[in-house]
Amino acid sequence: MSLRMALLALLAAQPMTGFDAMRQFDASVGYLWQAPHTQIYPELRKLEVAGLVQGQEVPRGEHARKRRYSLTEAGREQLRAWVEEVEEPRRERDPTRLKAAYFEWASPQAARAQLEAHARYHRDALASYEKQREDILARRVPLLLARLERTPPGEQDGVVEFKAFAYSGFIARARAEVEWAQEGLRLLDRLHKERSEGEAAEQPGA
Amino acid sequence: MSLRMALLALLAAQPMTGFDAMRQFDASVGYLWQAPHTQIYPELRKLEVAGLVQGQEVPRGEHARKRRYSLTEAGREQLRAWVEEVEEPRRERDPTRLKAAYFEWASPQAARAQLEAHARYHRDALASYEKQREDILARRVPLLLARLERTPPGEQDGVVEFKAFAYSGFIARARAEVEWAQEGLRLLDRLHKERSEGEAAEQPGA
Repeated sequence: MSLRMALLALLAAQPMTGFDAMRQFDASVGYLWQAPHTQIYPELRKLEVAGLVQGQEVPRGEHARKRRYSLTEAGREQLRAWVEEVEEPRRERDPTRLKAAYFEWASPQAARAQLEAHARYHRDALASYEKQREDILARRVPLLLARLERTPPGEQDGVVEFKAFAYSGFIARARAEVEWAQEGLRLLDRLHKERSEGEAAEQPGA
Repeated sequence: MSLRMALLALLAAQPMTGFDAMRQFDASVGYLWQAPHTQIYPELRKLEVAGLVQGQEVPRGEHARKRRYSLTEAGREQLRAWVEEVEEPRRERDPTRLKAAYFEWASPQAARAQLEAHARYHRDALASYEKQREDILARRVPLLLARLERTPPGEQDGVVEFKAFAYSGFIARARAEVEWAQEGLRLLDRLHKERSEGEAAEQPGA
């Protein structure tokens, strides 16, 4: 359902071919809803069958043709209805969190490697979300500009700020994850130190 | 895969029947990995077929029997191998975040209701995670005590602190989500105010 809505939101910016949708997806709504490329073409075709987008053959080079999709009024309605409906919040299920609760089963090296990978991943994500948020607020994102051209002036600030707001959520989350991983690394150090001291105390003559 | 590991971790605390596992799941590892009750019985049976847990018939009341499961050495090994393996971090996919990026399609009332639901949900989750973390650190959780009885004294602090650490992650996350929702509510107020002022400026005589 969400991929379907992500594609409708993408096409609300401007009509595009399947190839463009795939390319643009990764640079925009794909941050918000990651999906494999292989799902995008079939979903576009389903959207066309459902009348939510309209496909049109256009020339590609001199001899070939390609299909360009644009949002229909029914598609716009469906997007509106979906955003309007309050989403039930869900409990997080993160295998790393589950694993961390049972780190006593892991070697200290493995626990450390896990937390370092977690910190690294979320530090990179943080940088990329911050960059994306800045580009949105500075109105430097081509797709956003295309979308703003189709938006009445009084509503343009909202279009920009809601997108930046979504990224704020990712940024806060990524920051919390980096700090959590660092807390875990300090905990590993502390437990390791206590364990070493405990062992030293048991062997006073060693 | 994660439910399977969650059940092995649960049974590492003490042997239990399917009914106990269901009951204990919600009060312990179910916080870390939510799963419907209907999945627990079948998964226990699969674990038994795989030799990771061992089932034993024990009396239930005077006439009936029930099956009690305990972790086998192979189960312990599998749990260890799983915790040892570094988990690939994954990009978050939260429909509320996706929706928030397109709030310009929603009525202000719907956007507000969504953010209020989000804040409420994560505020409740925060309280429950904080309570659970305190109980763990104070060693007030019966299942944790059962687990500690089977743990050498030098390793008990780790068992407690890793669990508390996992909850720290949930707490940080829930806090970030509450703040994010509040930021969104302030944004809605600001956009609404700007919109009203803009409309008032367009109708100076009104």
